[in-house]
Amino acid sequence: MRLPPSPANDLAKLVQSGDVRRLARALTRHDDVQLGALLDNLEPAEQDMVFAHLPGERRAGALASMRYEVAAQIIGRLAPEEAAGLLDGLESDDAADILGHIDEGKLRQILARFDAADAHALEELLAYPERSAGGIMSPSLFSVHQDVTIAEATRRIQTAEELPQHVQYLYVVDEHERLVGVIGLRDLVLSKPDQPIHSVMATELVTVTANTDQEEVAEVASRYDLVAIPVVDDQRRLLGVVTIDDIVDVLREEATEDILRMAGAGQKLIDTRDFAMSFRARLPWLGAAAAGGLMVAISLQGFEEALRAVPALALFMPVVAGMGGNVGTQSSTIVVRGLAVGYVDTSRIGRLVIREVALGASMGMIYGIAIAVLAPLMGTTDSDPFGLGLVITLGMMGSMIIAAAVGTCVPLIMHRLEIDPAIATGPFVTTAVDILGLLLYFWLATILLTIVP
Amino acid sequence: MRLPPSPANDLAKLVQSGDVRRLARALTRHDDVQLGALLDNLEPAEQDMVFAHLPGERRAGALASMRYEVAAQIIGRLAPEEAAGLLDGLESDDAADILGHIDEGKLRQILARFDAADAHALEELLAYPERSAGGIMSPSLFSVHQDVTIAEATRRIQTAEELPQHVQYLYVVDEHERLVGVIGLRDLVLSKPDQPIHSVMATELVTVTANTDQEEVAEVASRYDLVAIPVVDDQRRLLGVVTIDDIVDVLREEATEDILRMAGAGQKLIDTRDFAMSFRARLPWLGAAAAGGLMVAISLQGFEEALRAVPALALFMPVVAGMGGNVGTQSSTIVVRGLAVGYVDTSRIGRLVIREVALGASMGMIYGIAIAVLAPLMGTTDSDPFGLGLVITLGMMGSMIIAAAVGTCVPLIMHRLEIDPAIATGPFVTTAVDILGLLLYFWLATILLTIVP
Repeated sequence: MRLPPSPANDLAKLVQSGDVRRLARALTRHDDVQLGALLDNLEPAEQDMVFAHLPGERRAGALASMRYEVAAQIIGRLAPEEAAGLLDGLESDDAADILGHIDEGKLRQILARFDAADAHALEELLAYPERSAGGIMSPSLFSVHQDVTIAEATRRIQTAEELPQHVQYLYVVDEHERLVGVIGLRDLVLSKPDQPIHSVMATELVTVTANTDQEEVAEVASRYDLVAIPVVDDQRRLLGVVTIDDIVDVLREEATEDILRMAGAGQKLIDTRDFAMSFRARLPWLGAAAAGGLMVAISLQGFEEALRAVPALALFMPVVAGMGGNVGTQSSTIVVRGLAVGYVDTSRIGRLVIREVALGASMGMIYGIAIAVLAPLMGTTDSDPFGLGLVITLGMMGSMIIAAAVGTCVPLIMHRLEIDPAIATGPFVTTAVDILGLLLYFWLATILLTIVP
Repeated sequence: MRLPPSPANDLAKLVQSGDVRRLARALTRHDDVQLGALLDNLEPAEQDMVFAHLPGERRAGALASMRYEVAAQIIGRLAPEEAAGLLDGLESDDAADILGHIDEGKLRQILARFDAADAHALEELLAYPERSAGGIMSPSLFSVHQDVTIAEATRRIQTAEELPQHVQYLYVVDEHERLVGVIGLRDLVLSKPDQPIHSVMATELVTVTANTDQEEVAEVASRYDLVAIPVVDDQRRLLGVVTIDDIVDVLREEATEDILRMAGAGQKLIDTRDFAMSFRARLPWLGAAAAGGLMVAISLQGFEEALRAVPALALFMPVVAGMGGNVGTQSSTIVVRGLAVGYVDTSRIGRLVIREVALGASMGMIYGIAIAVLAPLMGTTDSDPFGLGLVITLGMMGSMIIAAAVGTCVPLIMHRLEIDPAIATGPFVTTAVDILGLLLYFWLATILLTIVP
């Protein structure tokens, strides 16, 4: 089946129309993934309405396809009994991810409805930090002892009661349950049945620990083209497996987070739905920008006389500061993203800074001259258009050089200090560029223009 | 083997030291992926030096682990004979991806060294658009007829001469070679040997065509948790398979592209290495910003008298425009990213705009009042601190409301017009916010302040 262009949107319209009978029919024509996409984007009341019209056996599938945060909101509105019943039908790592977004009281009520062993397993998963390998791993995995033959291993897979959904590798352990090797299903199929598994398994293993940051797990998986990464404890005993579907989710989530952070707009898109959460996420960033703006105003105080004499200076403040800000944003974006994907060679920082500064200077010259030439045509009241043009050209060049240097260095320094450069680069760079660039601009004005106090 | 913290960096130092003997020894202790990461970040001369010290059989592995663009640069410097020999050792989709970054003349020379069938297969792959399913798919796949038994299918896999590296699914075709089903290796292992394959295969297939955009392929794979997606022609005949490792690459690449585009800093990080390419990528964006800045200056021309009377107005221009710009960037970032990951409900745009505007207004009020209260403490020469405070508060609120509305609407309009909102949102929003916000600010000043001409 080829994917229909935007099934979720058509369904959404049906939901909003309130035609329950047509909706129930339409739901049968869509798979779990399409239902998940639909539910993600509905209002709470609509979500509950759709859920009520889903046959019981499809609810778990739709839930597993949703964003965890949104699924958690639906689960949170259900009775604990019903919630536990639904979550019981999910893979335990998905269930734990959803439960991780439910408040403590409700969580206790739901876990109380699981049988003791399942509740304990979920609690163990919930204990790992959310953004660690432990937080995203699936604890259900399949391992065999290294002395077992290929035929026996195959037989065990065939007779296993509960096999993890995404089994791609068979993990091989020694008598202390320590991970010693891995064999892909493909190699299992390809090998002679009577060989012992240790003679065909791969022993060069890439593993992570439960505390490894999820970003690092994704980085390792993508570098090594792995479909699953085993998570081990300090004795190399298997704790679980991070599968590629979770890694794909991590990559998308981290990219979104970096993009939102760079604009000071929060961390997760879900937060942007909620007025209060969005307000809280954006307030500090804007506070830093406001404080910066006040510092700009204070630092330019001494130039009120120059402004009174040549008010046209003010007209070009936005372009001088703005072009600097743009170059600064470009430089810092390149460095922040480069650091995130390992594309900045930290052993050659000097070269990076020099290149960015040279770019800033050359582009500053081009646009500075262009604007200086066009400025007199505007017909301002200024009596010294040539002087003003020179101030604009040099001011813009200087502002863009400063911006390139600041925009390149600030994220590198933050990285060195182990602060996420995506978080704090924005307001720092803008404020520094505004202050330094405009100070230079006004200083040039007092030197190059005839200002009669 | 746990990953050493940053092997590429230690190796890089060794390369730069020029100690060839220690380097050759160190290279043997690193795997292909680590070598790839090292080579990605070296200078051309250093890359060639490392390559010269790599045993022949390891060169292909290192090359396959590199970024395609960088690998292409190395291949481009080799003799055609040697280049063809190396590329012959790679999976054909990797070879095609590298060749896609080599200039036409050199490409012809290299292809002439392949045997005719291989050259033809590579040319077919190269003919697909780079960012389509065809451009990233692997043409080597394994399919069986639907009437074959499980045992026979297993035997064919075991005796296949060349098996694709990432085989996770077995594709099932009818007598016209049309795709009719799929079976995972796991289910193959789990099924009874004498069953015909069509009785156990899954028939609900998610497929893409060769022209499907790679971003859509990644979206489908991640929604459906697929490890591979079959690519079919209009007769549903199998053309190839896009595997999860390529999808992971696409996700990283597209995220980087969106981030760089939003700052007008180009499309690919590789471009930022090269001065001329970086210059070309950034020039148009800065040109748009410069034109915008000139428009700001022109639109504020009428206020020179107000500035001469109250030069303190100029001091607060950066914070009024800057806070607007920040809010506009936050709003547009949320919308651009939301559109990219399908998180903006396009059937409810009005609600989105209202929420953003309300956020802008409330935050504008908070910070506008804060700055207005602090402004008189600065001791400007202005005689009417209360009036100036009011102008700042109202101006900032207005600027932030305008910014939120513009920042939300511009990317939505671009999306509707099928222009990538990440490309053009930046300069548009900044210029519009600067002009409208500052016009409002100065207009408020002429009304609320006593300005004696």
